[in-house]
Amino acid sequence: MLLHLSTWPEIEAYLKTSQTIVVPIGSNEQHGPTGLLGTDWLCPEIIAHEAQKAEPNLLVGPTFNIGMAQHHLGFPGTISLRPSTFMAAIGDWCRSLGAHGFTKIYFLNGHGGNVPTIEAAFSELYAEASFGGRPRGFALKLKNWWELKGVMGLATRQFPTGHGSHATPSEIAVTQWAYPDHIKTAEYAPQIAPTGPIREAADFRARYPDGRMGSDPIQATPEKGGELVAEAARGLIEDVAAFSAEVAPT
Amino acid sequence: MLLHLSTWPEIEAYLKTSQTIVVPIGSNEQHGPTGLLGTDWLCPEIIAHEAQKAEPNLLVGPTFNIGMAQHHLGFPGTISLRPSTFMAAIGDWCRSLGAHGFTKIYFLNGHGGNVPTIEAAFSELYAEASFGGRPRGFALKLKNWWELKGVMGLATRQFPTGHGSHATPSEIAVTQWAYPDHIKTAEYAPQIAPTGPIREAADFRARYPDGRMGSDPIQATPEKGGELVAEAARGLIEDVAAFSAEVAPT
Amino acid sequence: MLLHLSTWPEIEAYLKTSQTIVVPIGSNEQHGPTGLLGTDWLCPEIIAHEAQKAEPNLLVGPTFNIGMAQHHLGFPGTISLRPSTFMAAIGDWCRSLGAHGFTKIYFLNGHGGNVPTIEAAFSELYAEASFGGRPRGFALKLKNWWELKGVMGLATRQFPTGHGSHATPSEIAVTQWAYPDHIKTAEYAPQIAPTGPIREAADFRARYPDGRMGSDPIQATPEKGGELVAEAARGLIEDVAAFSAEVAPT
Amino acid sequence: MLLHLSTWPEIEAYLKTSQTIVVPIGSNEQHGPTGLLGTDWLCPEIIAHEAQKAEPNLLVGPTFNIGMAQHHLGFPGTISLRPSTFMAAIGDWCRSLGAHGFTKIYFLNGHGGNVPTIEAAFSELYAEASFGGRPRGFALKLKNWWELKGVMGLATRQFPTGHGSHATPSEIAVTQWAYPDHIKTAEYAPQIAPTGPIREAADFRARYPDGRMGSDPIQATPEKGGELVAEAARGLIEDVAAFSAEVAPT
Amino acid sequence: MLLHLSTWPEIEAYLKTSQTIVVPIGSNEQHGPTGLLGTDWLCPEIIAHEAQKAEPNLLVGPTFNIGMAQHHLGFPGTISLRPSTFMAAIGDWCRSLGAHGFTKIYFLNGHGGNVPTIEAAFSELYAEASFGGRPRGFALKLKNWWELKGVMGLATRQFPTGHGSHATPSEIAVTQWAYPDHIKTAEYAPQIAPTGPIREAADFRARYPDGRMGSDPIQATPEKGGELVAEAARGLIEDVAAFSAEVAPT
Amino acid sequence: MLLHLSTWPEIEAYLKTSQTIVVPIGSNEQHGPTGLLGTDWLCPEIIAHEAQKAEPNLLVGPTFNIGMAQHHLGFPGTISLRPSTFMAAIGDWCRSLGAHGFTKIYFLNGHGGNVPTIEAAFSELYAEASFGGRPRGFALKLKNWWELKGVMGLATRQFPTGHGSHATPSEIAVTQWAYPDHIKTAEYAPQIAPTGPIREAADFRARYPDGRMGSDPIQATPEKGGELVAEAARGLIEDVAAFSAEVAPT
Repeated sequence: MLLHLSTWPEIEAYLKTSQTIVVPIGSNEQHGPTGLLGTDWLCPEIIAHEAQKAEPNLLVGPTFNIGMAQHHLGFPGTISLRPSTFMAAIGDWCRSLGAHGFTKIYFLNGHGGNVPTIEAAFSELYAEASFGGRPRGFALKLKNWWELKGVMGLATRQFPTGHGSHATPSEIAVTQWAYPDHIKTAEYAPQIAPTGPIREAADFRARYPDGRMGSDPIQATPEKGGELVAEAARGLIEDVAAFSAEVAPT
Repeated sequence: MLLHLSTWPEIEAYLKTSQTIVVPIGSNEQHGPTGLLGTDWLCPEIIAHEAQKAEPNLLVGPTFNIGMAQHHLGFPGTISLRPSTFMAAIGDWCRSLGAHGFTKIYFLNGHGGNVPTIEAAFSELYAEASFGGRPRGFALKLKNWWELKGVMGLATRQFPTGHGSHATPSEIAVTQWAYPDHIKTAEYAPQIAPTGPIREAADFRARYPDGRMGSDPIQATPEKGGELVAEAARGLIEDVAAFSAEVAPT
Repeated sequence: MLLHLSTWPEIEAYLKTSQTIVVPIGSNEQHGPTGLLGTDWLCPEIIAHEAQKAEPNLLVGPTFNIGMAQHHLGFPGTISLRPSTFMAAIGDWCRSLGAHGFTKIYFLNGHGGNVPTIEAAFSELYAEASFGGRPRGFALKLKNWWELKGVMGLATRQFPTGHGSHATPSEIAVTQWAYPDHIKTAEYAPQIAPTGPIREAADFRARYPDGRMGSDPIQATPEKGGELVAEAARGLIEDVAAFSAEVAPT
Repeated sequence: MLLHLSTWPEIEAYLKTSQTIVVPIGSNEQHGPTGLLGTDWLCPEIIAHEAQKAEPNLLVGPTFNIGMAQHHLGFPGTISLRPSTFMAAIGDWCRSLGAHGFTKIYFLNGHGGNVPTIEAAFSELYAEASFGGRPRGFALKLKNWWELKGVMGLATRQFPTGHGSHATPSEIAVTQWAYPDHIKTAEYAPQIAPTGPIREAADFRARYPDGRMGSDPIQATPEKGGELVAEAARGLIEDVAAFSAEVAPT
Repeated sequence: MLLHLSTWPEIEAYLKTSQTIVVPIGSNEQHGPTGLLGTDWLCPEIIAHEAQKAEPNLLVGPTFNIGMAQHHLGFPGTISLRPSTFMAAIGDWCRSLGAHGFTKIYFLNGHGGNVPTIEAAFSELYAEASFGGRPRGFALKLKNWWELKGVMGLATRQFPTGHGSHATPSEIAVTQWAYPDHIKTAEYAPQIAPTGPIREAADFRARYPDGRMGSDPIQATPEKGGELVAEAARGLIEDVAAFSAEVAPT
Repeated sequence: MLLHLSTWPEIEAYLKTSQTIVVPIGSNEQHGPTGLLGTDWLCPEIIAHEAQKAEPNLLVGPTFNIGMAQHHLGFPGTISLRPSTFMAAIGDWCRSLGAHGFTKIYFLNGHGGNVPTIEAAFSELYAEASFGGRPRGFALKLKNWWELKGVMGLATRQFPTGHGSHATPSEIAVTQWAYPDHIKTAEYAPQIAPTGPIREAADFRARYPDGRMGSDPIQATPEKGGELVAEAARGLIEDVAAFSAEVAPT
């Protein structure tokens, strides 16, 4: 069930049986010579949309498509929020959903660089109650799609070398499966990109001239992408069910 | 050309011939008993995506899908940013795009309630230069899709009565055309919804119990939606071309 | 009744019979070769002060004299708030008045450039309740003085050509009537100023070298100003009465 | 010379000979049973306007009429900015004036409760340069009108007892001189109000039930007010001249 | 009793008998050729720690060691918060302590430049209640250690000339007593440093080339420091007792 | 070398040979029945101070002693910054140090709950350059003390069971070694505390009634603490040297 293709009476009815929602969250940022700029928000969107087909009682919200990608701003097409802006926006999404009675808000994340800011945003929200306000009563959870059960194991089998950490063959495979008309090709030099620290955008582009980190994306295929999506969708359904079943302490 | 389905080298190449980008922007909010929660971001997305098929040199960015909808928070499924958050986020989108060399950023808007905040966000950005900083050098433009050439005239012919201002038959028709599997039906009482001022969410729900303002959405059909999309896409291509051709004073 | 020339017991007594207050709001910004820098806050102040002489039960607050004028910062004497600052300040004015029991806060505005930010500030305030807080219970209204009943019609009759949108003969006439010792003269070239978009301050000064937009201020006279003030004061009394009489839905 | 009754070409000309401006700043807050709500912004405005009549080369800006008065919010008619809002607004005034080339910005203050926030706002502005930005090059000065040369001595002679610190006979006398039609009377009990600390608004109203702190305002007369204004205007001209003459170290 | 060397059950027990806490607060900033960078936070820490040895029922919190020192940023080793950041941090300290039931929070300050921002921070906190929120119920107090009873008199006797206002012999003496292994020496030229206004950091370094203001630190000795600490510790115990004994009005 | 016990000329001299500084950072929060409230800032302070004795060329800044501990606010004595405040403060520390020429700022962290916010703060700082500003040119690094080489291995050998994640025997041992006069004892029930998620403060106290998470602190001894400090100090010297030796890409 997709929230944005539903009406408010449908959501009002849904809330009587479940108070859980899944929000795909990612980033719009360069992904090397062949990765789509949307890769990091497309992947969780693809997986979550696939999962709700298999499990109609899974409610999926609109995709939060811009995240924390300041280090990629040296490459055209990247759009980033500063962490302070990102936190404010996550906060307003959660305050909105919380006002309707959602008590379990699950962010399925597609960008490692988002993790600290999302976690900080959760703490900022929790702090509204902890500093002496009234309890908000919701639980917030962040999960990276590659950490869903079975996914990383599959990716390791598919790409035993050259997986890397940015513009990886696994994420590119997922978008190839979903957008077969937008598969790109390029020569890679070196075949496996270098690794290192992440700092300012200019520093990043100097270290990683074509945008990849540690990866060899040529290994991506739509078929492998389809396997990953299937595995991730199964893992998501299971993980969300466990989150929904959690009972708050009294 | 869709930015999120492109690579950074493709955007780098694009910027050599054009520095204009179209960003669909809207809101995720209740649209009465039969309107989709995503209506206000789906409409500009549908129109902009349609336009770029006809005019491949039109670059369309990711959709900014959450806007200023505080007054709809009394209806489940609405997600809103506070104006201050919305301004910060629009600012970071534009700062990102400006850093790549985009000098004309065109927001195709789908929600009237967004207008003041988007305009204020533009002024906030311009002010960074006006208060003594270096000129940023970009021009920002906001256009509501129903104000594109020919659109309002067509809508008035299609819906001579009961168009209203929220959950209108025209916007619902557009989503019916694009998402024919998600057409909803309901009884409307009264047939044409009341009108009045917009204040806090609780006040809004008391005034407009089913969420509509002045509209009679039953008149919407996918066919009328298709006509509106075609008209709007033509208007968009023309309006963006004029904006791109604008020369800054010296 | 002017709030700043009253004592707190007088306001406490007033609140027992009315909970409405009028706040003149404007901007301090260049108004071309002959317009006073204070024009945009002087006009609503002049009109509101005149109105409360005719209708003693009209309470007028202090004038909010600095607004959003970033685009005029290329001209000496302009003082502007960034939109984010402006919103915070409007918010604190309204929170203060709301804490005393004012439930109808009416801003009589003198500067078109203020409109988006004032509207955004209203939404920011309303959102405090809409996001799950307690209802604030007040209604906020913005009215430009030239949109009061009868005013624009009169101005069109007085200035059939060359009214324009900035440094207009009507606003200059109002200040001439109120400050006859400060009437300025200058040669205008061209007689009617150009029009166009509003962006950063440097862009603005390049487009509009003497600061006017579309106007021919030579037509202003104190007599015409006096007529405008009388019309606007009547319109204000009527409009505020209607606003005060509004009943919230239950 | 009053900035708001001048044109931008007049200010442009002024800046060629002087880069100093005086800004009256105060607060709109309860002043006991007989003090005007505007007392704290009217006093510096009255004094500065009087001074510029005697010294035409003194440029006086618009009055900053709302300050930090949170502790008076228990009394109707008080309007306060939070310190954070107040700092942002002072900052934008100074950034605006600095952008035009003003290098000496002198705030003539009418409210003791404003002092910490104004000083903090100055530091916030200076810090923009000190943290590694480019030097802003302006000097900011705050002066309370009662600290101008000769003023406190005169007030002590006029009111040897019962001057107090809020709703004082001296400030009320100044407004009586300027607004003789708005002189108010009341019984005071006790004749001299109590003194003590300043905390939250509810605490303040409990400690100081009629709003006065340590004062006996019955001693105020328009004549004494006139003497105070004359003394303060002389002191202001002298103090501003010294500030203008200051040379920055190299 | 030092909070940071206590456990939460010990603080829970303490709160049953007292709701008062002392927080040493200062700044880490240059103190001339021989003053330690930590002088301004070390002094209140030294005094407060000494006082709690004599009065075990005095609870001393962690030291707030970075304050508002923007003007010293021209000298290496200075670390400053902007006033807005400083206010936010003081706010969170107080909100945390208030949430535990502390109703008297006493800041023992070591840096004059902190005073306006700390006072503004108090008002910002109080305003949360004054603008219509629920009363917070705590009282906040700021005291500079040199204003404790007896201290300034002693310092004047110890240093009849050349005390000055920054890098004073009294504060340096206090750190010499506490950190005898870190006594520094230097030639001073001039022997007594100049005085003047405080503005941006570059301006400050130009006016005060070695960082001192009005002082002759050579007079500092550990013995004089010990006398000052003893006097200040006595004064602190007495002042905190009086603050604790204060009763809120009803 | 401790920055706060140095003078500015000493730091100026230091910067000629090294541009690296170590900042201990932690949190002041409950650590179960026997852990000191200061544990999380004392541990990195103890280790860093020990390391600089062994390696005099290691510069250690003042300790950042309050972090993100909103979830512990249900226990008296905890002091927390909201993430947004924490980010602002880290930012100002780094901007200050960067203004002096420090190019390698190394935070030695003592609190896991700080990690996301510190990382977000780094990105916020980097973004100032990445969004089109001038490169700041510094590198920021975060290291938890228990991740220094050899430390976790030693802790696992010392505490093969019941180490847990909050109020661990290893961190308590470190403070016992440094503050032997403040060793606390208590009965633990259960012996090993439960584990689970971290949310709002009230939820935390309900889940973890005595404040511990997964730990059995009774195993802590000053001797084990001394071993941990020695191992960590060695690891710190080595890790900082590697960080200092890093060369930026060109």
